[in-house]
Amino acid sequence: MNTDEESDDFIVTPWEVEGEIDYSKLIKKFGTTPITPEMVSRIKKLTNGDLHYMIRRGLVISHRDLDWILNKYESGEKFALYTGRGPSENTHIGHLIPWQFTKWLQDKFDADLYFQLTDDEKFLLKLENSYQETTRLAYENATDVLALGFNPEKTHFIIDSEAGVKFRKIATEISKKITFSTIKGIFGFTESTNIGMIYHPAIQAAPCFYPSVLKGRNVPILIPAGIDQDPYWRATRDVAKRLGYYKPAAIHLQFTPGLEEGGKMSASKPESTIFTTDSSKLAEKKVKRAFTGGRDTIEEQKRLGGQPEKCNVFAWYRSSFESDDSLLDKRWNDCKSGTLMCGPCKQELADRVVIFLETHQAKRQELKEKVAELVIRE
Amino acid sequence: MNTDEESDDFIVTPWEVEGEIDYSKLIKKFGTTPITPEMVSRIKKLTNGDLHYMIRRGLVISHRDLDWILNKYESGEKFALYTGRGPSENTHIGHLIPWQFTKWLQDKFDADLYFQLTDDEKFLLKLENSYQETTRLAYENATDVLALGFNPEKTHFIIDSEAGVKFRKIATEISKKITFSTIKGIFGFTESTNIGMIYHPAIQAAPCFYPSVLKGRNVPILIPAGIDQDPYWRATRDVAKRLGYYKPAAIHLQFTPGLEEGGKMSASKPESTIFTTDSSKLAEKKVKRAFTGGRDTIEEQKRLGGQPEKCNVFAWYRSSFESDDSLLDKRWNDCKSGTLMCGPCKQELADRVVIFLETHQAKRQELKEKVAELVIRE
Repeated sequence: MNTDEESDDFIVTPWEVEGEIDYSKLIKKFGTTPITPEMVSRIKKLTNGDLHYMIRRGLVISHRDLDWILNKYESGEKFALYTGRGPSENTHIGHLIPWQFTKWLQDKFDADLYFQLTDDEKFLLKLENSYQETTRLAYENATDVLALGFNPEKTHFIIDSEAGVKFRKIATEISKKITFSTIKGIFGFTESTNIGMIYHPAIQAAPCFYPSVLKGRNVPILIPAGIDQDPYWRATRDVAKRLGYYKPAAIHLQFTPGLEEGGKMSASKPESTIFTTDSSKLAEKKVKRAFTGGRDTIEEQKRLGGQPEKCNVFAWYRSSFESDDSLLDKRWNDCKSGTLMCGPCKQELADRVVIFLETHQAKRQELKEKVAELVIRE
Repeated sequence: MNTDEESDDFIVTPWEVEGEIDYSKLIKKFGTTPITPEMVSRIKKLTNGDLHYMIRRGLVISHRDLDWILNKYESGEKFALYTGRGPSENTHIGHLIPWQFTKWLQDKFDADLYFQLTDDEKFLLKLENSYQETTRLAYENATDVLALGFNPEKTHFIIDSEAGVKFRKIATEISKKITFSTIKGIFGFTESTNIGMIYHPAIQAAPCFYPSVLKGRNVPILIPAGIDQDPYWRATRDVAKRLGYYKPAAIHLQFTPGLEEGGKMSASKPESTIFTTDSSKLAEKKVKRAFTGGRDTIEEQKRLGGQPEKCNVFAWYRSSFESDDSLLDKRWNDCKSGTLMCGPCKQELADRVVIFLETHQAKRQELKEKVAELVIRE
């Protein structure tokens, strides 16, 4: 639902991303702050020049209070990271992108990560979803998180259905400060929404303050997430001050398009993305069917060059499968100049996806039992 | 809030009881079933003739599905009892009355009791309530329950803020089946109600199904409570079938009036009742100020007799401080005939209240540490 009265050609809510997204318009609409070159320089300085390629490439687009949290960091007050996932399906490439960026933040800023799996929300959202299944998926998804190489010493999973008394208490405290009319406006709830969903924003806000409860002091929180998740934090930021906690800061990533034309990767369109559980064969097939910026014929492409600016295969290289900037530039130029054809370019992506999948799946196997140890039950 | 369109001279909701209550009207309005002489005979048979005086005196006025639950009992399927308290204040005599009846049910039907203390709800209800304080009161109130002599082997406290994962899961399952519009109608919530309160009916319904979860089989539930609590169970009964559980049955008690004129005992009118923590001196003072059915002068009372039918002191004897029917009848007749004056009648009640308080307070002291052992945290 688009709650803005202004009519746009795109829709961005926590549940739906559709259309050609104009990010500057979206940033203005959401009221977040764009990432400026000054901010990029500041991060670069703090990470000893080792900027993540998602920042270098402008995939990290906006923030809330990032300057404030970096001030805290510089004055010796470490922040914790909070992100999460609604476990309605297996994990796919679209989920991994912000998590990979989160891992980089953990490494560079020596930050604890609180990762929430909202198995309750996914159960509540759809009549046909079973609780047992969403909890099972929570563990599956958490295994994918760990497989990305997060530091197990500093990674804590909150599985909503298994959360402990301290967690529930802070959620109750938050819920006292949020009225139905506030939440209705933000999420587009109606009178037919079930009361579990209506309550859920309190559960989703709780990890912003939970680390403070656990540590017994105010802990600054940075939320790395797709910009579509921003509405969740507006109510939380309003509540924070009234509860005596810091407002959570946020850093927002752009979406990476799906393999098919239009829209972001989505589990509900399985052809648009690759699940971490897909077989190599299926993954290869999906990549080969991807929407590209290629011309109608090879002859035409040689003559006019390809259009990497509208190519989803190129977008995948940029966001996930080519970390070397000069090689990414070369790919762009070779495409533009008509040297690189879509066939081999797709094949190479498919090969990299398969290598990634095989490595990732082996790590998943290895870390399967580890998740339970990292679930906080306090 | 009176959700009925018909205008009455009384208001009965889970939060408010005002005016002269016409119980037959109320039963009709709530849609419950009156307790018939046949039902009384049936209970008498099942308890070997040992009827509780509250049943004998018509203080137990209505029910839902009591016949069904007695059928279950007779066919060997034991029921569990569920009642509770919102710990906003210390316990007073008005709370003890249904609990005393509940204890009798526990003894006679060898039933487990699940007693819920909604410290979260009381925290959520009023801006000024602190969570720490409502939790403290939950333990205080639970001590009063135990002091009434419940079997500790069969008594389980659910303190909402400390409830475990299984309890929260069943609450989430319930919440999926209740929409805002349903709950709004029952409780009179508005858009300015906080989302914690909106969610709370799911928490309050959870103990209806929690014993089934714990036992791994469907357990019939009987809820003994003031009839003002009935609205809570309407939504629950609707939900039960859809979740595959038995609908909870209920048995309703009439209110006992406060010591002052009009209304039921209420913690918000401390002169209307006696708290279990009141000193003997204060208790005696409150009883002596009670509203009675006495005449303006002693001379007049001797001539015309008193009016026990509108006397709150007599009502206290009937509901709590005279278990012997023939002595209660004698008191009625002595009052009616002008033999018994209000002064000595009040003094005798005050003496009995003081004896009760002293015994009860000693038991509270003795059982103070016991509550924590009986809190379920599953």
